[in-house]
Amino acid sequence: EKVDDAAVAVELIHAYSLIHDDLPAMDDDDERRGQPSCHKQYGEALAILAGDAMQAMAFEVLACSDRLDAAQSVALVAILARRIGTEGMAGGQALDTAPNTAPPTQEHIELIHRLKTGALMEACVQMALACADDVKDADRRALESYAGKIGLCFQIKDDLLDGSQESDAAALPAVIGREACRQRLAELSEQSLQCLESLSDKAADKADRLRTLTRYIAERND
Amino acid sequence: EKVDDAAVAVELIHAYSLIHDDLPAMDDDDERRGQPSCHKQYGEALAILAGDAMQAMAFEVLACSDRLDAAQSVALVAILARRIGTEGMAGGQALDTAPNTAPPTQEHIELIHRLKTGALMEACVQMALACADDVKDADRRALESYAGKIGLCFQIKDDLLDGSQESDAAALPAVIGREACRQRLAELSEQSLQCLESLSDKAADKADRLRTLTRYIAERND
Repeated sequence: EKVDDAAVAVELIHAYSLIHDDLPAMDDDDERRGQPSCHKQYGEALAILAGDAMQAMAFEVLACSDRLDAAQSVALVAILARRIGTEGMAGGQALDTAPNTAPPTQEHIELIHRLKTGALMEACVQMALACADDVKDADRRALESYAGKIGLCFQIKDDLLDGSQESDAAALPAVIGREACRQRLAELSEQSLQCLESLSDKAADKADRLRTLTRYIAERND
Repeated sequence: EKVDDAAVAVELIHAYSLIHDDLPAMDDDDERRGQPSCHKQYGEALAILAGDAMQAMAFEVLACSDRLDAAQSVALVAILARRIGTEGMAGGQALDTAPNTAPPTQEHIELIHRLKTGALMEACVQMALACADDVKDADRRALESYAGKIGLCFQIKDDLLDGSQESDAAALPAVIGREACRQRLAELSEQSLQCLESLSDKAADKADRLRTLTRYIAERND
């Protein structure tokens, strides 16, 4: 399926972002998914280069796909490039890296979440829409709105799960408290489900998988 | 002109590659073009992210250009992505980073040169060809061959100019000697000029600029 090429590209981008995020100059994580992180295993230089090469490979997959026509390939490259650049994933990571001069506000933290994590999730939905034929405008808007909500859900849940973030001034629990975080998570996951309610019949057939995704994000324990 | 978008994309890629190459884990250079290198000025995390975002921006420029049609955009993305990935620039840099187990051969060093530097120069020529209409096959082959030659020239000249490389076992002067390097440089730059001789009239009009480029690469002093 066309969407498979989009999925491969997103997975390459996601994996590259994790490799670079784990670097000593970034989050300095020695482990990833229970294994040594890339730079621990292969050294920093190769980890930087592996991430760089994986980003290029993502765009190569989209441009060289024989399942996508040229207009679709270009649309997918445009969506993905915009969502992972200065106004998306990399920009959010840069904001997150910047030293805090003032205590962060909820708005600032949610902006970082939206860019750092939400942008790639939105890209997934937009890329799937770009692969599909005849999507109604209302369905398109509902699905894009859905993607924005679950992006925020994911990151709030992440902050709640990561106990050490309690002491991290830039994490939402430290700013609004854990209970308010849980309420915000419930509110956003409810809103994401409501986005799916408005889908026209054809799209609604597949909405169950998205409902499952919302529940997974909100209820996961690791 | 269409080729302007291609040029912007290549320049973004080149600049990103320099930012990442200068990182402490890579070449560890404190200066670039007489200024503090990016990580010296802004820190390692932002330097990594700036490079990452610039790579994405290069593909965004190609995909969002309103001067290129979809088929051309896709062709440019495909060329650039392939030339900077594992089988091009990043792959060459990775080989260059790997510890030498045996004394390097001329072939191995030239492979690294071809990937690390030559691939992006070849991309420039291939991208310009993809922007042009009605290029004859023979002209295309001649120009691609030209690009391969000047890529090697550039790197040999670089090794010759960088005196400190004398002691670097992985640099060509240390392996075949400075005099043999100068001969190889002369031979390759002569071959690159010969590639241009075979161009058909139309293309030959513009070949003077390429001759100037060859001479600049072979004769530059910094």
